[in-house]
Amino acid sequence: MTPRYDVIGIGNAIVDVLARADEDFLVYHGMAKGSMSLIDETRAEAIYSAMGPAIEISGGSAANTVVGVASFGGKAAFIGIVKNDTLGGVFMHDIRAAGVGFAASPIKDGPATARSYILVTPDGERTMNTYLGAAQLLSAAEIEEDEVAAAKVTYLEGYLWDPRNAKDAFLKAAKIAHKASRAVSLTLSDAFCVDRYRDEFRGLIKDGTVDLLFANESELKSLYQTADFDTAAGVLQKEAKLAVVTRSEKGALVVTCDKIEAIDAFPVETVVDTTGAGDLFAAGFLYGFARDLPHTASARLGALAAAEVISHLGARPDRKLADLARERKLL
Amino acid sequence: MTPRYDVIGIGNAIVDVLARADEDFLVYHGMAKGSMSLIDETRAEAIYSAMGPAIEISGGSAANTVVGVASFGGKAAFIGIVKNDTLGGVFMHDIRAAGVGFAASPIKDGPATARSYILVTPDGERTMNTYLGAAQLLSAAEIEEDEVAAAKVTYLEGYLWDPRNAKDAFLKAAKIAHKASRAVSLTLSDAFCVDRYRDEFRGLIKDGTVDLLFANESELKSLYQTADFDTAAGVLQKEAKLAVVTRSEKGALVVTCDKIEAIDAFPVETVVDTTGAGDLFAAGFLYGFARDLPHTASARLGALAAAEVISHLGARPDRKLADLARERKLL
Repeated sequence: MTPRYDVIGIGNAIVDVLARADEDFLVYHGMAKGSMSLIDETRAEAIYSAMGPAIEISGGSAANTVVGVASFGGKAAFIGIVKNDTLGGVFMHDIRAAGVGFAASPIKDGPATARSYILVTPDGERTMNTYLGAAQLLSAAEIEEDEVAAAKVTYLEGYLWDPRNAKDAFLKAAKIAHKASRAVSLTLSDAFCVDRYRDEFRGLIKDGTVDLLFANESELKSLYQTADFDTAAGVLQKEAKLAVVTRSEKGALVVTCDKIEAIDAFPVETVVDTTGAGDLFAAGFLYGFARDLPHTASARLGALAAAEVISHLGARPDRKLADLARERKLL
Repeated sequence: MTPRYDVIGIGNAIVDVLARADEDFLVYHGMAKGSMSLIDETRAEAIYSAMGPAIEISGGSAANTVVGVASFGGKAAFIGIVKNDTLGGVFMHDIRAAGVGFAASPIKDGPATARSYILVTPDGERTMNTYLGAAQLLSAAEIEEDEVAAAKVTYLEGYLWDPRNAKDAFLKAAKIAHKASRAVSLTLSDAFCVDRYRDEFRGLIKDGTVDLLFANESELKSLYQTADFDTAAGVLQKEAKLAVVTRSEKGALVVTCDKIEAIDAFPVETVVDTTGAGDLFAAGFLYGFARDLPHTASARLGALAAAEVISHLGARPDRKLADLARERKLL
């Protein structure tokens, strides 16, 4: 069967609420800079009251990635849960308007659509505080076999380990994908997330559930509990089939059993907001991977998409990535 | 009595829903590029369904202006109506977080918080489609004498002529302001708006209700029904006490009975989105005016604020304007 999608993403469906903040704000509110913290409704209200004027943009890690795949011209779909409230409407509009298939109906009762209060410091770094709300309800029931089997790559976010039953959705999707001879890809999401679920993530990589792993430096160090990057990369090379390690302005590494290839980052004039950098790197790589490009070419698409998204506020591309890639002669 | 506020703004409380669109989209949907059209709920839904991925940012012309005044370090307040729905919450959070006084309680019943579907074309120009919703309900009842009398300038948007009873709010506020020996300022808002209420606006200027007028070139030409800018400027000089005419990249003119002074625009590397350019020009000028700066110095603050806001998506400043002005030695 010819794949109907290049990539299907499964993740938390989140609307980002982004505001600028200084370092003192993070310290005062006990936030670990650069990380994602889960918060309850009370804390969500307290943070929102304290934070500055904000903008609302659809987000969610895997959702950002599939939007990026579609922006490159790929066929993409997304599975996640929103409520039929205003932010749910915003999320559904934006992902569909980006050309991504999103079939799920919003829930009518229960918690509100998930949102992440994101503080962007003057250095462009983002610190996320996520109220999962309706996204908590993702379970294996939402995974349709024919949808997942129709995608060349099934892309899953590590954050799915947080909601109670989303892990079941993850594992069901991975099983369907492999049964249909499709690839399964995982992003480690966040160093603290890795810390919460280290053994399970490491198990998924070692036992072959994950065919393609995305991680950044701090996630990788957290996974292998070492402060030394080269040590971590060495273990990764032994345990993973194929991995892409992003290193911010130092570019990225493509790690296979027989070699490690380095790819440069694209120069960026001003880093405005790093939200979505990893998500969009994954988008470029996944698009290339699904279209059978060489890994280094795929990684360059990833670097291009990451550079675009950190040049403006928000975690989704502001320009058509296919156009950008063609201008740079990458497609 | 010392003024408690530099500027109090009265206007439609609107959340902007911004998306990129090409020129064909505007033509296909019958939109006049660069203008503001009023739409009903059905058309709002149709436009939203058709438009691309969007971002939500608080807007509203006079609201953007008072946020700009606060960003310069001025004391500002706003009067307008929202509903207690999600977008109403967003509007209230953002204007208060910007340091602007907003005392009104959201309405519990009736139409939803106003939103404007804004299409930004590749040249950075914006075309607005506004569903007024709750903003329709603004009336003289919302105007508190002690609030308006406490502001050095009362700033009113021409758009207030659109909702049924907002004009009464406008006229009541102007009367209070003059009784307290404060200044009244009006922006003509939009050439089509001028076309709808030409005689009334011209009357307000001639009879001295308006002490300080803001207009752009096309609004001015519409006001005096001429295609020749110099002709329009000549009539303006005879009829207005003090006027600021913005001319995009050509800068602005400060028009008084005895002279017309030209102020250059600030250079902008890339015009990303012109939404809010006029609103923020007014913010800079009003801040200077309220602080008794010379008109040319006030206009330079206006030009600076306009340049900042057109460099990114959205109609509110992304950087503290007081800092920018100090960097440029304008404050």
